[in-house]
Amino acid sequence: MNLNFASDNTGPAAEPVMRAVIEANAGAAMPYGAEPAMTRVRDALRAAFAWPEAEVLLVATGTGANALALSGLVEPWETVFCHRIAHIEEDECGAPEFYTGGAKLTLVEGADGKMTPETLAAAMAPVGTKGVHGVQRGALSVTNVTEAGTVYTLDEMAALTAMAREAGMPCHLDGARFANACAALGCSAADLASGFDVVSFGGTKNGCLAAEAIVMRDGTRAAEMAFRRKRAAQLWSKHRYLSAQMEAYLADDLWLANAHAANAACARLAEGLRALGAEMVWEPQANMIFCRMDRAAHDRALAEAQYYLMDEAERPLCRLVCDFTKTDAEVDRLLELLRG
Amino acid sequence: MNLNFASDNTGPAAEPVMRAVIEANAGAAMPYGAEPAMTRVRDALRAAFAWPEAEVLLVATGTGANALALSGLVEPWETVFCHRIAHIEEDECGAPEFYTGGAKLTLVEGADGKMTPETLAAAMAPVGTKGVHGVQRGALSVTNVTEAGTVYTLDEMAALTAMAREAGMPCHLDGARFANACAALGCSAADLASGFDVVSFGGTKNGCLAAEAIVMRDGTRAAEMAFRRKRAAQLWSKHRYLSAQMEAYLADDLWLANAHAANAACARLAEGLRALGAEMVWEPQANMIFCRMDRAAHDRALAEAQYYLMDEAERPLCRLVCDFTKTDAEVDRLLELLRG
Amino acid sequence: MNLNFASDNTGPAAEPVMRAVIEANAGAAMPYGAEPAMTRVRDALRAAFAWPEAEVLLVATGTGANALALSGLVEPWETVFCHRIAHIEEDECGAPEFYTGGAKLTLVEGADGKMTPETLAAAMAPVGTKGVHGVQRGALSVTNVTEAGTVYTLDEMAALTAMAREAGMPCHLDGARFANACAALGCSAADLASGFDVVSFGGTKNGCLAAEAIVMRDGTRAAEMAFRRKRAAQLWSKHRYLSAQMEAYLADDLWLANAHAANAACARLAEGLRALGAEMVWEPQANMIFCRMDRAAHDRALAEAQYYLMDEAERPLCRLVCDFTKTDAEVDRLLELLRG
Amino acid sequence: MNLNFASDNTGPAAEPVMRAVIEANAGAAMPYGAEPAMTRVRDALRAAFAWPEAEVLLVATGTGANALALSGLVEPWETVFCHRIAHIEEDECGAPEFYTGGAKLTLVEGADGKMTPETLAAAMAPVGTKGVHGVQRGALSVTNVTEAGTVYTLDEMAALTAMAREAGMPCHLDGARFANACAALGCSAADLASGFDVVSFGGTKNGCLAAEAIVMRDGTRAAEMAFRRKRAAQLWSKHRYLSAQMEAYLADDLWLANAHAANAACARLAEGLRALGAEMVWEPQANMIFCRMDRAAHDRALAEAQYYLMDEAERPLCRLVCDFTKTDAEVDRLLELLRG
Repeated sequence: MNLNFASDNTGPAAEPVMRAVIEANAGAAMPYGAEPAMTRVRDALRAAFAWPEAEVLLVATGTGANALALSGLVEPWETVFCHRIAHIEEDECGAPEFYTGGAKLTLVEGADGKMTPETLAAAMAPVGTKGVHGVQRGALSVTNVTEAGTVYTLDEMAALTAMAREAGMPCHLDGARFANACAALGCSAADLASGFDVVSFGGTKNGCLAAEAIVMRDGTRAAEMAFRRKRAAQLWSKHRYLSAQMEAYLADDLWLANAHAANAACARLAEGLRALGAEMVWEPQANMIFCRMDRAAHDRALAEAQYYLMDEAERPLCRLVCDFTKTDAEVDRLLELLRG
Repeated sequence: MNLNFASDNTGPAAEPVMRAVIEANAGAAMPYGAEPAMTRVRDALRAAFAWPEAEVLLVATGTGANALALSGLVEPWETVFCHRIAHIEEDECGAPEFYTGGAKLTLVEGADGKMTPETLAAAMAPVGTKGVHGVQRGALSVTNVTEAGTVYTLDEMAALTAMAREAGMPCHLDGARFANACAALGCSAADLASGFDVVSFGGTKNGCLAAEAIVMRDGTRAAEMAFRRKRAAQLWSKHRYLSAQMEAYLADDLWLANAHAANAACARLAEGLRALGAEMVWEPQANMIFCRMDRAAHDRALAEAQYYLMDEAERPLCRLVCDFTKTDAEVDRLLELLRG
Repeated sequence: MNLNFASDNTGPAAEPVMRAVIEANAGAAMPYGAEPAMTRVRDALRAAFAWPEAEVLLVATGTGANALALSGLVEPWETVFCHRIAHIEEDECGAPEFYTGGAKLTLVEGADGKMTPETLAAAMAPVGTKGVHGVQRGALSVTNVTEAGTVYTLDEMAALTAMAREAGMPCHLDGARFANACAALGCSAADLASGFDVVSFGGTKNGCLAAEAIVMRDGTRAAEMAFRRKRAAQLWSKHRYLSAQMEAYLADDLWLANAHAANAACARLAEGLRALGAEMVWEPQANMIFCRMDRAAHDRALAEAQYYLMDEAERPLCRLVCDFTKTDAEVDRLLELLRG
Repeated sequence: MNLNFASDNTGPAAEPVMRAVIEANAGAAMPYGAEPAMTRVRDALRAAFAWPEAEVLLVATGTGANALALSGLVEPWETVFCHRIAHIEEDECGAPEFYTGGAKLTLVEGADGKMTPETLAAAMAPVGTKGVHGVQRGALSVTNVTEAGTVYTLDEMAALTAMAREAGMPCHLDGARFANACAALGCSAADLASGFDVVSFGGTKNGCLAAEAIVMRDGTRAAEMAFRRKRAAQLWSKHRYLSAQMEAYLADDLWLANAHAANAACARLAEGLRALGAEMVWEPQANMIFCRMDRAAHDRALAEAQYYLMDEAERPLCRLVCDFTKTDAEVDRLLELLRG
């Protein structure tokens, strides 16, 4: 029984994705994205996002997708507005700074891992008021699902992207958990992407081995981005294995089905945890739970299961993540362990 | 019939590698290289290279392996000595410059894609003679198999690395075709790596989907390199799919067997080409052929087969590469097409 | 009458400094710091700082001094802790990020433009807890005089640098107004520099034309820093004009006398402003005043004088800075204008 | 007697330049280029270059002018074509690579320190033929006076810039010795600048303390360049001392008069050296001489004079440079010493 709730990246690849990789392995294929599957992937994403001019680059890591995407949006003397706990700020070891040639990130506050029009306005206010002495407004980057496991509504995102656009800034969506956000909101990919210029569309956490798509609504910078990808050493020679993953992930809405499964497992787990007296730190709205409960319960569970304790408190903060493979039986077994 | 001779990256993954990826897909695994297979990969490379203290990082692209390796060897105000047609100079779109923070490459001349002690000395002579005004000697990077399809002998490499070491420079081996070089020389991995500090040990061109190992003889900079890899967005979350590939590639000397197969196919092809009157531009010593023959022959062959013509001459320069899957029948069919 | 209170960089160079530049103009001199005056400057700073092994680099801008200093202290995957309103954060257009290859700045809160042990601890706490995923603790940068015109006491600085040192971080002092801080505290240069590894010792704002010294307590990285300076295009060929300025600035404690003059003018001005009903936003402890008073007063004054209004409030925030040349008559005339 | 022939940067500032600096020191002045003299400098350069839309940035070093200029012309994945012995390649410690974010320099051969259409074509041919794998054609950078002391004719420059323009590349002129080139060619500034997009117009070597102008024919990127200058820490706060120098340098064609003086001294020296049996390595066409003569002569001269021996040969290569202050008496004294 798989009791690994440490992250959605501890899960396997989905069976259709793996099968597609195996099928892609037959015979020879031209390299670097010249394989026919890549055209199909681009077309599938154009259709899903309702962006008929979109261009798509595939890379193997979410950090790569984010850092490359941002490098095409901001100049080195500009700044990216993002939430204080955004992945690009906390979990990428400075990759955005590296890829952009040293642009800044300006941290925006906000409860539940979410920026608000008020907190974004507060962060934007002083930026760009100092002429050449200060960095300039560069781009907005929104993460949905947030790193707190909460989900921006479509209206909440629209309010933020409208502000950015009014200020002349393009908008980036860190969609490492794009699918889980769509599943949570009951919306389409096009709905979620609306208002953004570039999306990091995640596959790895939700059924791929290692595949993320950078989807650019407007293809005008596609040529530049192709140079950036190669120069960043993110261009695969045997690119067919990337496009095969993404094609299978998109086919028959596998991405969405997987996300529904992950979110449902998470909801079941959250309900059970509440029944055990856990306090939710943030409302779990997708596939991640941050809660506090007694250490004794963790001691029992962690003898058999895997997840992270994030502090040393008596009732430590724990993070529990469900990937798309989690079964009711696995969730229930974890709850049983915690219950003692 | 697979008549794609465009590159060794047009070939598939080897069956044992693919099987290992499928097996790695069972259940959960801790991410980022914490899976047990990674320890086995490190130990296998330590043994193969006879470097008991070696540390290993896996990445998905050869450019990533080279650029990361060099970034740990040189300061931004230093230069890397490499052959004029080295992959790091011609085929990486400036990735070494990007990863090193703007270090230079100093180009070394030499027939057959190979530096010599004389040409290296000539390139080194002026570097470092101008105090703070000029860049400093940083590292030597040798490519074996060379980009010309020739192979440095062990003595030839030893002469170059000795010169570098005497000048206080560490040595990097671009081993994108490491296996083909070993097969050509009949030497061990340890023999080929001898004299180097860091090796880019290629898997992708010779049986992997996308897997390259950065092997560092001396592990002292391993911690720094781990930060560099993450920051460069080259760290996989589902890292098990990298280590599975590399483990299978190393097991039972699959890497060497594949390379022998590729080199043998290439030798058969070269012999056939010579019989057809082709002039070899460089002596094919591994799995790549650069030759000239009549355009009419190419016109016939390219209707069915795939490879590159590199100029518009009457007898155009063509590049033919054999990956490890090429059969005698495929080689013979290509020759038949060329013969007309 | 000179009623320019916009900044201390609107003031002229001090007469002894200008005379030294004129004298340095006689005949030929070897370039790039090989002139004898540079040795005397180094020795004078060694003595003043009581750092017998110190090495010194001169540059023309404060931003250059800060960015170069930091580039020698932190790796690209590290972060510099500084106050939210530090010059390196707000007024250098990302130069620290550029020079360091993309290191981060982590912003520390604190009233009166000053970090405290508590706010520094809060900022440091999460940094370095995420393995390779997060940036690492790199350096502490303290600005004294602060950008709020307040002055850290020696004890306050010692508390901060001790924390940094315990965490393994080197300490940088942004001393663009080093002299004004010494004058305010009545301490020596050695007192102010105590606890730091590298100091940006400012000359430009306090009597030089364009001259700042990077003073490194421990000379071990001096060779590296010399390459960094040249590569950053901060190395003057006719370097004698930099060393002449700095030598004259240090001679006979001109730096300190000038700062005393500037601070005294500022104190006189602050007293007068208070009598006119101005509210001090921060306590003016050196040569800068941030206060609020009625717009009508400003309308009168700004017809004749120059300084900055920083918002559009009814009682706008204004910044008034005294350079070392400000006379009692000039201060009194400004007060008279404001009084109406 | 000033027998320093080591470089033109060992000379002093010209008297009118120094006087202008002294005059600029009166009273207060708004910082960062807002002083009225900067407008006059811009207008003077617009007139001199016959570029009515030109924008101008002043910096303190020639390396800064070149590196900043290039950073506005090329992307990080592009390359700058320049002569193998260009200052940007040999004498700037990688500053162009730093400022451009890691662009390459592609070295062009050519006798006498000069590129030719043939050598430039040869260097350009392979660049840009490899799709995303290779760096792209970025810009052409011509140095006149060359580092060999020779001078491109106007026709020679026009041939090169026409080739660049046809290939879609902007053109940069490294004019650290712009004035000496004009003096040598008997042409106007507008003549020399014709065909270029950005010129590094040098002042430091020819009468300024430290002042170089980046002159951009087309001002469209001026805003971007202003950010780049600040971010590179090249923006002076007391900017008046830069504009004062440049204004005086331009007034009454001081720049040209100084260059004529330097070139004339050099011609006298060259004639004398030839009479002593020196072999000119390159034809001295401006203010620099590279020649070989007996070591015994050098031993005598170097006891009293200063210049560089650049190798250890029996007849060592020596470099002798005349700045604008060199008198006939000084030149004759050096010749006397060499004659023995």
